[in-house]
Amino acid sequence: MMDLFEKCYNPKENSALYDAKVAQERGLYPYFLPFEGTEGTEVTYNGRKIIMLGSNNYLGLTHHPKVKEAAKKAIDEYGTSATGSRFMNGTLKIHRELEEALAEFLNKEAVIVFSTGYQTNLGTISALLSPKDYAIMDKEDHASIVDGWSMSHAKFSRFDHNDVDSLEKVLQKIPEEAGKLIVIDGVYSMAGDIAPLPQIVELKKKYGARLMVDDAHSIGVLGKNGRGTANYFNMENDVDLIMGTFSKSFASLGGFIAGDKEVIDYIKHYARPFIFSAAMTPSSAAAALAALHVMQEEPERIEHLWNIANRMRKGLKELGFDIGTSNTPIIPVYIRDKWKTVMMWKELFDLGVYTNPVFPPAVQPNDSLLRTSYIATHTEEQIDRALTIFEKAGKKLGIIK
Amino acid sequence: MMDLFEKCYNPKENSALYDAKVAQERGLYPYFLPFEGTEGTEVTYNGRKIIMLGSNNYLGLTHHPKVKEAAKKAIDEYGTSATGSRFMNGTLKIHRELEEALAEFLNKEAVIVFSTGYQTNLGTISALLSPKDYAIMDKEDHASIVDGWSMSHAKFSRFDHNDVDSLEKVLQKIPEEAGKLIVIDGVYSMAGDIAPLPQIVELKKKYGARLMVDDAHSIGVLGKNGRGTANYFNMENDVDLIMGTFSKSFASLGGFIAGDKEVIDYIKHYARPFIFSAAMTPSSAAAALAALHVMQEEPERIEHLWNIANRMRKGLKELGFDIGTSNTPIIPVYIRDKWKTVMMWKELFDLGVYTNPVFPPAVQPNDSLLRTSYIATHTEEQIDRALTIFEKAGKKLGIIK
Repeated sequence: MMDLFEKCYNPKENSALYDAKVAQERGLYPYFLPFEGTEGTEVTYNGRKIIMLGSNNYLGLTHHPKVKEAAKKAIDEYGTSATGSRFMNGTLKIHRELEEALAEFLNKEAVIVFSTGYQTNLGTISALLSPKDYAIMDKEDHASIVDGWSMSHAKFSRFDHNDVDSLEKVLQKIPEEAGKLIVIDGVYSMAGDIAPLPQIVELKKKYGARLMVDDAHSIGVLGKNGRGTANYFNMENDVDLIMGTFSKSFASLGGFIAGDKEVIDYIKHYARPFIFSAAMTPSSAAAALAALHVMQEEPERIEHLWNIANRMRKGLKELGFDIGTSNTPIIPVYIRDKWKTVMMWKELFDLGVYTNPVFPPAVQPNDSLLRTSYIATHTEEQIDRALTIFEKAGKKLGIIK
Repeated sequence: MMDLFEKCYNPKENSALYDAKVAQERGLYPYFLPFEGTEGTEVTYNGRKIIMLGSNNYLGLTHHPKVKEAAKKAIDEYGTSATGSRFMNGTLKIHRELEEALAEFLNKEAVIVFSTGYQTNLGTISALLSPKDYAIMDKEDHASIVDGWSMSHAKFSRFDHNDVDSLEKVLQKIPEEAGKLIVIDGVYSMAGDIAPLPQIVELKKKYGARLMVDDAHSIGVLGKNGRGTANYFNMENDVDLIMGTFSKSFASLGGFIAGDKEVIDYIKHYARPFIFSAAMTPSSAAAALAALHVMQEEPERIEHLWNIANRMRKGLKELGFDIGTSNTPIIPVYIRDKWKTVMMWKELFDLGVYTNPVFPPAVQPNDSLLRTSYIATHTEEQIDRALTIFEKAGKKLGIIK
C-alpha cells in the first residue's frame, strides 16, 4: 500500500526538503534561526548582536513605549485571547475601535480586521470571486493573493510585473459578462518597486473591473502619514479595496480590508478564513491601534525611514551591487545564482548582518536574491557598518570587484 | 459590463447577506456584538453583565495571572510583533520553547506552531496532499479542514459523522496506490461528542491510511492533564498527526501540528500558510506556553470544567431540551428551526445569557442549534442562573413545556 508520508521520510533529490537537508549538512541552512532577543534594529543570535536587515518592522514600532503599553493594557482589560470568531463571541470593543480608526485613516467607509494578513487576502478574494469570475494578478503578487484565487476556483490571468500593456492585453481577452477583480501590490515585497496605479486605474475603468491593492508594504511607508499607495497617487476613490497587514508597520499581527460598507459587509458574511478563525488577540488589536496613532503623531519616522533606505541604496549601488528597480525601503540585492546566494547570506550573517535569502519558486530561477528592508530606528552608523560588511562579503565571493 | 460587486450592493433574496439585513431590521442580528470587557465567564455589553456560554476559553486561562504576566513579559523582551515569517526573520526563542514543550506534552517527536489554528489545518493538509491523494473526512469536520482539502486539490471522500461502517465503505473504494489521509476532530465543535478513535485506528491500519486528529476542542479537556483524544484512548503512537489551536484552552491565538520529525520538517518546507504568513506574536507564544504549564500544574481546573458541564447537561436534559449526543463541555441545544433559533438566542441574550447560534450551511437545515460551551472558572451559581434563564426563555417560546 502507498504511504502518504513516504515523501517526508525519503525526500526526492532537488526537492525543497532535500535541498534543505543538503544545506543543513553543509552548515548553510538559512531558515528558522531562533533569535534570543531583539530591540528591533539588532537581534541576538548565540549571544552575538546582528544588524537586522530582514524585518518588515518599517517604522520600528515593535518597541515603541506607547505601542507596548497599549498591548499590555489590553491584556489587563480583556485577557490574553478573544477565544472565538469575530462572528460569534470574539468581537471586542477594541476590534471595532481599530476598524473605525483605520476607515477614517484610509478615507474608506468600512474596514474589517482579520487574524492574519494571509487570511485577509485569502478570505477577501475567495469570498468575492466565484468560478465564473476572473482574478487578474501581477506576476509578482504575494503568495496569499495567489492562494486566495486558488481557494475561489475562479478563472485566472496574470500580467507581467508592473507592465500596463500586458495588463491591457489580458483585460481584452476577458468576456464582458464576467466579473473582474484586478489585484496588485502597492509596493512589491521582493523588487521593492511601486505599482503604476494611475495607468492601472485607467484600465480598470475602461474594462469595468474592480481593483484591490495589497498595501502590506506601503502603509506606514507611502503617502501622507503612511496612508499607502492610493493616497500617494491621490486616487483613494479609484481603489475599490485597500488591504493591509499589521505585522509590518503596525508592529502587530493581523490584516485588514477597507472599502465600501456594502462590500465589507459582504466579505464579513462570506469569507471563510474570517468566519472560521479566532479573532485577533486584544493585545494585537491594541498594538495596531496604538501604532496607527504613532504613525500620525510622529511623521518624522517615515522621513527617517526613507533617508536610511536611500543612504543604503546609494551605498549598495556605489559598491556595484545589482539592486534592480527598487525605489522604496525594500532593496533586493540580486545574486542570481542559488548556492552563491546562500553563501553570500552566510558570509553576511557571520560578519553581523541578517538578510532574507530568496530562491525559486518564490522568484524566477535567475532572480535569486537577498532581500533587505529598513527600519525607521536604524541609525546611519548601523547602515554604514552594514555597507562595510556588504563590501567585504561581496568582494570575498567575487560578487563585486 | 458586469460589476463584480453587484451582489454586495443588491444581495439576492435568501442569501446569507440578505438574511443578515432582515435580521438587522428586526433587531434580531446575533453577530459581531462588541463586548466592552470580559473577565472570562461574564462579558459586558451596553453596560450589562451577561453570562458567557459561547466561549472556547475552556480552562478560563485568559485571565490567569501567570498567563497574563508571561504575555506582558514577552512584550518587554521581544516587542509586540515578530514582523516576519517563521521561515525568515520571524523565529524567536520563545517559539522554539513552545514547540519543544508541546512535543514533550503530546509525546511526539516534533511540533511546529502556526499563526492561527485555521492556517494550521489549511497548511498541513494542503502540504501533505497532492491531487492524486485522498482526503477522508468526517461530515462534521471543522471548516478549516475542508478548506485545507480544497486548497490541496486532492480527491475527497466524506463519511457519516462518527460512523465507523461508513468510514470503512469509503476506504474500500479508494485505490491501494493512492495516498490516504483520514482527518477527524477529537471532540466535535458543534455536537460535542468524541470520535471513536480505537475503531478508526483499526481501519487506518487495515487500509494503510495516515490519521490526523484535530484536537482543537480536546486539548485541555480530554486525557491526562488535557493531553487530548489520543492520550484519552491511550493511543498516542497510533495517531500520526495531532493538531490543536491556541485560541481555546491555551488562552492565546495560533495553532500547532505534532508528529514525527520528518513529517513536521516536510510541512515546514511546503505549507504555504506557514511560509507566507507572519509568525505568532511573542506575547501569544508566551501566553500559550504559560497556559501549557498551568494545565499541568492545576489539574483541578479540568475536573471543575467537567463538573460544571455535567451539571448543565443534566439541567438542560431535565428541562426537556434536545441536546443530542454531547458528552463533553460543548453542549448543543437543538432548536431545529432557523428563525426560532434566532428568537431563542435573542431571548436568552436579553435575559443575560450569551450562546452561539448556528444555522445552515454550518449545520444541516434541520439541525439549527444554540451552541453552548463551558469554562473551568464558571461557578455553580452562574450555571444555575443560566438554567433558570433557559427555562424561562424555552417556555416563553414553546421550545420546552
